[in-house]
Amino acid sequence: MNTFDLHQYLHERVRLVNDALARYLPDESERPQALHQAMRYSTMSGGKRLRPVLVIAGAEAVGGRAETVLPTACAIELIHTFSLIHDDLPAIDNDTLRRGRPTCHVQFGEATAILAGDALFASAFELIARNAETAPPDRVVQVLRLVAEASGTRGMVGGQMVDIESEGKQVDAETLEYIHRHKTAALIRASVVAGAILAGAQEWQIDALSRYGERIGLAFQIVDDLLNVTGDPQKTGKAVGTDAARGKATYPALFGVEASRQRAHALLKEAIEALAPLGERATPLRALATLIVEREG
Amino acid sequence: MNTFDLHQYLHERVRLVNDALARYLPDESERPQALHQAMRYSTMSGGKRLRPVLVIAGAEAVGGRAETVLPTACAIELIHTFSLIHDDLPAIDNDTLRRGRPTCHVQFGEATAILAGDALFASAFELIARNAETAPPDRVVQVLRLVAEASGTRGMVGGQMVDIESEGKQVDAETLEYIHRHKTAALIRASVVAGAILAGAQEWQIDALSRYGERIGLAFQIVDDLLNVTGDPQKTGKAVGTDAARGKATYPALFGVEASRQRAHALLKEAIEALAPLGERATPLRALATLIVEREG
Repeated sequence: MNTFDLHQYLHERVRLVNDALARYLPDESERPQALHQAMRYSTMSGGKRLRPVLVIAGAEAVGGRAETVLPTACAIELIHTFSLIHDDLPAIDNDTLRRGRPTCHVQFGEATAILAGDALFASAFELIARNAETAPPDRVVQVLRLVAEASGTRGMVGGQMVDIESEGKQVDAETLEYIHRHKTAALIRASVVAGAILAGAQEWQIDALSRYGERIGLAFQIVDDLLNVTGDPQKTGKAVGTDAARGKATYPALFGVEASRQRAHALLKEAIEALAPLGERATPLRALATLIVEREG
Repeated sequence: MNTFDLHQYLHERVRLVNDALARYLPDESERPQALHQAMRYSTMSGGKRLRPVLVIAGAEAVGGRAETVLPTACAIELIHTFSLIHDDLPAIDNDTLRRGRPTCHVQFGEATAILAGDALFASAFELIARNAETAPPDRVVQVLRLVAEASGTRGMVGGQMVDIESEGKQVDAETLEYIHRHKTAALIRASVVAGAILAGAQEWQIDALSRYGERIGLAFQIVDDLLNVTGDPQKTGKAVGTDAARGKATYPALFGVEASRQRAHALLKEAIEALAPLGERATPLRALATLIVEREG
C-alpha cells in the first residue's frame, strides 16, 4: 500500500483514455464537420476522466487489464459528456461556461449541441459493441444492459429529470437521495462494475464492487454540492453558490455543511470496507475513493 | 404469392409490436412521471411501425420468428421516436404538430422533451441487451454495433445535421443523397439486417437484405419528399409544402416530381431484385417495398 503512487497511476491511465478517445471520436475533417468538431470540443476539454479510470480500476481489482476494457471506459466518458452537453442547454440548466470554456451550444449553436450529445450517446454504444473484440460477447451484453440502465430513466436521465422538477421547491431527504443516486451515482457505480464484468469477475466480486460504486457515487455528488458552497473557484473551475441561487436540491442546503461532510466520510468508510474481500488488487480503488471525498476541485 | 394478405400481415405484427412497446416502456405511475408520460405520449401515437415490422420481416425472410426479435424491433422504434422528438425541438425543426397532436415539447415543455428523447435512446439499448434472452449474445453484439452506427454520426444523426446545415442553401445531388442515405435509409436498412442477424442469417442473406434495405430506405425518403409536395393532408396527416417553405433539400426540389417518382420506382425494382435469392420467405418484404413506394400517407 505504501508504495502505491496515485498520481502516477492516474497519469498513466488518463493518458491511455485520452489517446483512445482521440482515436475513437470521428474525424473533424469528415462530414458533418461541425458535428464532429462539437463532439471533440466537449469531450477533449480536460475532464478528470474519473469514470473511465474507475472502469479500468474495476477491471484491475479482479485481475483484468486496462487495454481489455478501454472501449467501454471511453464509452462511459462519452455518455458523461453527452449528459453535460444536454444539461447545459438553455432549456435545462442554461449554463454558458464549463471548465472555463463556452459550453457546447454557446460555441456551436443549440441544434448542433443537441445533435452532438445524441451522436456521442450513439458512439458510446458503438464502443461497447467494439469491446467484443477483446472480451466475450456475453460479458459485453451484460455491460450493455448495465450501462444503458444506468444512463436512462432508471439512472442518469431520470435523476436529471427529478433534479429539474425540484428546482426552487422544498425538497425532502428522499427526493434528494433519489436525485443523487440516479443522476450521478448510477453511472459511477456502473463504471466500476462494467470493468469488473468485462474482466470476468465472479458474483461476489461484482457485489463488493457494486456496493463500493454506489457509496463513492453518492459521496462524489455530496462533495460536488459542498464544493459549490465552500469551494475555491480557482481549483474547481466553477462559480460558487450557483446551486443556492437556482434553488437546487443539495445536501448542504438540506442538512448543512458539517452533516454533509460527515455523510461523505461515512460513505468513504463504507466504500473502503466493501473492498476488503478484494485484497491488494483493490488498492487503486481505495485511493480513488479517498481522492473523491477529499478533492478540492 | 397470391395468397399473401399484406393487410392481415401488418395488422398482426403491428399489434405484437404495440403490445410489446406498451410492456417495455416505463410505467407512468413511477417516478419521474412526467418523463415517462412524455416517452409514452410520443411512442404510442399511432406510428406506422414500419421499422419494427421490417425487423420482423427481416428475421422471417431467413426462417426466424417475430417473438425472437421483438425487443430489437421495439428498440428501433424507440430510436425513431427519439429522433422525431429531438428533430421537432424549437432549436431544430420547430414543429408544433405531429400525427395531428402537439409535439412532445409543446405538450410537456422543452426540458422534458430533450430528456424524454435521451431516455428513449437509452431504453432502446436496454432492449437490445434484453434480446440476449432469446438470441445468442454474439448476434446481439453484432446488432448493437449495426444499430448504434446507423443511429449516430455515420447514420441518422449525421444525416439530420447535414439536413439542417443545408436549409435555405442550394444543395447538390451528392449532398441530397448523403442526407437521405444517412437520415432515413441507414436505420431502415439496419432494421431489416438486424432481424436477419438475430435469426442467424448467413453472409449472403445479410448482403441481399442489406441491398434491399438501402433501396427501400432511400425510396421511403423520396416518397416522403414527394408527399410533402403532392400529398393529401387528410391521408399524410401532415401539412403540404412545408419542405419548400423551409428551403429543405428534397428530391422533387432538385430533380422535379416526375424524375423523383421514376427514381423511387427504380429503387423499388432494385429492392425486389435483391430479394430474389431469398425465395418465398421474402414475400412480406416484397409487399412492404411496394407499399413504401405506393403509399399515399
